[in-house]
Amino acid sequence: MTETQTLPYIGKRQIHEHGHVILEKVMGDELDILNNAKVSFNTENQELDTHGKGVLRFLMENRHGSPWESVIFRFDIILPIFVMREHVRHRIASINEHSQRYSGAMEEFYVPRHADIRQQVGKPGSYSFEPITDPLILTEAEYLIENTQREAFRAYHRLLELGVAKELSRVVIPVGAYTRIKWTVNFRSLLNYLSLRNHKDAQREIAAYAIAIEELVSEQLPYAMELFNKYDRVAP
Amino acid sequence: MTETQTLPYIGKRQIHEHGHVILEKVMGDELDILNNAKVSFNTENQELDTHGKGVLRFLMENRHGSPWESVIFRFDIILPIFVMREHVRHRIASINEHSQRYSGAMEEFYVPRHADIRQQVGKPGSYSFEPITDPLILTEAEYLIENTQREAFRAYHRLLELGVAKELSRVVIPVGAYTRIKWTVNFRSLLNYLSLRNHKDAQREIAAYAIAIEELVSEQLPYAMELFNKYDRVAP
Amino acid sequence: MTETQTLPYIGKRQIHEHGHVILEKVMGDELDILNNAKVSFNTENQELDTHGKGVLRFLMENRHGSPWESVIFRFDIILPIFVMREHVRHRIASINEHSQRYSGAMEEFYVPRHADIRQQVGKPGSYSFEPITDPLILTEAEYLIENTQREAFRAYHRLLELGVAKELSRVVIPVGAYTRIKWTVNFRSLLNYLSLRNHKDAQREIAAYAIAIEELVSEQLPYAMELFNKYDRVAP
Amino acid sequence: MTETQTLPYIGKRQIHEHGHVILEKVMGDELDILNNAKVSFNTENQELDTHGKGVLRFLMENRHGSPWESVIFRFDIILPIFVMREHVRHRIASINEHSQRYSGAMEEFYVPRHADIRQQVGKPGSYSFEPITDPLILTEAEYLIENTQREAFRAYHRLLELGVAKELSRVVIPVGAYTRIKWTVNFRSLLNYLSLRNHKDAQREIAAYAIAIEELVSEQLPYAMELFNKYDRVAP
Repeated sequence: MTETQTLPYIGKRQIHEHGHVILEKVMGDELDILNNAKVSFNTENQELDTHGKGVLRFLMENRHGSPWESVIFRFDIILPIFVMREHVRHRIASINEHSQRYSGAMEEFYVPRHADIRQQVGKPGSYSFEPITDPLILTEAEYLIENTQREAFRAYHRLLELGVAKELSRVVIPVGAYTRIKWTVNFRSLLNYLSLRNHKDAQREIAAYAIAIEELVSEQLPYAMELFNKYDRVAP
Repeated sequence: MTETQTLPYIGKRQIHEHGHVILEKVMGDELDILNNAKVSFNTENQELDTHGKGVLRFLMENRHGSPWESVIFRFDIILPIFVMREHVRHRIASINEHSQRYSGAMEEFYVPRHADIRQQVGKPGSYSFEPITDPLILTEAEYLIENTQREAFRAYHRLLELGVAKELSRVVIPVGAYTRIKWTVNFRSLLNYLSLRNHKDAQREIAAYAIAIEELVSEQLPYAMELFNKYDRVAP
Repeated sequence: MTETQTLPYIGKRQIHEHGHVILEKVMGDELDILNNAKVSFNTENQELDTHGKGVLRFLMENRHGSPWESVIFRFDIILPIFVMREHVRHRIASINEHSQRYSGAMEEFYVPRHADIRQQVGKPGSYSFEPITDPLILTEAEYLIENTQREAFRAYHRLLELGVAKELSRVVIPVGAYTRIKWTVNFRSLLNYLSLRNHKDAQREIAAYAIAIEELVSEQLPYAMELFNKYDRVAP
Repeated sequence: MTETQTLPYIGKRQIHEHGHVILEKVMGDELDILNNAKVSFNTENQELDTHGKGVLRFLMENRHGSPWESVIFRFDIILPIFVMREHVRHRIASINEHSQRYSGAMEEFYVPRHADIRQQVGKPGSYSFEPITDPLILTEAEYLIENTQREAFRAYHRLLELGVAKELSRVVIPVGAYTRIKWTVNFRSLLNYLSLRNHKDAQREIAAYAIAIEELVSEQLPYAMELFNKYDRVAP
């Protein structure tokens, strides 16, 4: 059983059956981004007025990146290992992760709903993904995905029973198994993450996380996110 | 005239006649550092109890670095260019800086008090710095430092009067002139900064900034800073 | 079948049955590290003489880090996913990785030799690892590790046969399965990697990679590695 | 007197009267970039054929960034402090710099040719720069720029004579004075540098460095630079 987060937080989204994204803390707001930019002129705004919004628009359109780094988010995320393996590639961020070496594997693993069991169609480099509709195939695929992982966890527990070290027993754990991280990231790096992961080419399962993160961030910085969308979702 | 910061802030220190360090915002506390570490075990503490303090001590002593990155500080700093030139070398941070290209040079420049006009004694690699006591030398040195910079600013303003572009006129500005930054930095990177800059080998003028920053940070994270000092001021 | 590297390389180590470390290219040598340091004095050495060696020793002992960043290594590494998951946490490096989404899983997976099937003894935080000697346990553990992974690959291939997309079929793949990376890293960051991963607390399987990397690097920079060991294997 | 670089190097450009850019070393080539990308498919090319060029084009057009990080350059650069202050903002790079604290200021300083003494015309945010043609203004401006810096250096030397420490005497040195760095940077980060600094909005004096660097890099990676230009000089 994954233990729940009981400390106060800002917002939460459930992802699939076992995952979640929790926005724990945020530092800064759109006025801060503006005032980080305005230090160039040794001036400061007291509020985000029309002029200030124009400055933010200019910064986004012309990809002046550093002011956007002044706002920081911290998330608690429960996600499958295969999603984590893409997530961790975003280097400009800080991560602490659940340790299978120290505390053993978390018990949950990802099994897609039938609607998410899909085929890829087309040539390498330009695949599209389409639903599988044959109920026999869906049933067998779901069985394979669930049962293979279940058997792997069974073998894992038997290895522990035999006295094999946790760090070694884990080699049988599937990449569909869940892990948990704390993720601290600045807004500029987060926009780069969103541009790549909340994107039509991203794998559906990682996109689910990116969409949830984007919703939570948009509640904090609605105007900045409006600008991000207006200027083609290119990170400044 | 440097415009003052009028938005609310957490703490402020004046540095020399014209500089300052303002702690604008902070995200996180010692409990967050602990809970970033405890995600390894998929558990969470509600408060920083004796056990939790022991965990923090273990993390500092054994240099487990990533949990300390979960706390973020943002500062507003007014500092001479020659101090800025060392400050900016700390790459794991975000900076926005006053622009001489866009808004012209800030008018202030650094003139040391007599007590800070010093000589270096000893061999390269192991200098020490000792006061200069001869009043004639002190007077001449202060005059040279102040007058040379004043004349440089006079030339700068004459160049502007002549219509020379700000970005070019500035080449005469001395490195003793002030600039202003917003500095967003995580606590781990900040500890590395403090280990190098609040250090006996640091130049006195940059150390003055590091000392002020350390005071402001210590008010926020007193136990973490106690551990940093206990374990030889080595960044985890 | 993993395709072999056929372009010229500098050195290679086989790791376990299916892994390897190949040192593909290196830029720079110990004289470069020295001359990066000596730019402080606007001077340059033609060779690494006694004086130069003294400077390198001073830099290592006093942890002056930046000159060590001037030497770069690039490796080709085939490694299990659970080792990769630790490797990728070293952010100051560049990685390209084999993609299960695009080209499907590599077929190999890690099965420890009997001598590596171990138990952990002692309290959390200070485990030691000791061999398992009971032949019945060894036989069962090996069977579980090998068979569970083999079955997972069988399920994976059946999912592909059913038309399920590669990116989704892979969720059953175990973390013992192999992946392949190109790793470009500077010498300073590499020393930090070695200090943590060629260390008694590192998991044996990742240490095997760190040891191989250290051997290959030591052939290139023998004096620098001698200094690293002399000064307690702390990255400068 | 700046000491000359006597070790072998790949290419050199003189910048203005006192500056230079030397390409000291490079690791990797376009085939390496291709093979870093092809590790995704666990394959390797022996040469950069038509197919390989197509892959590079795809990577640049679609901003797949990491393969471009596998090629590294190291430069020796002599540049004015005001140029260095922009250069150092590129964080994904390694720098060692001449130290005024340890070895005193370098003696040279930047004086623009008449053709570079310019005015800014237009509104903030969209300045253009136009030549100043009045010979009286040019003469006075040149005099102010040269003489102010010369006087600052005279004061600096007098301060040293008086026994004032080098680290303090330097506060009078103008930002037009030269410094020297070693700069190690990967190709992706370099393209970001070029996109910003060899750009119509960059200050002419920093652009002079970026243009020289781009020439030297283009000799090493002509096809990659062709692609960079083809796709709007956006770093991948």
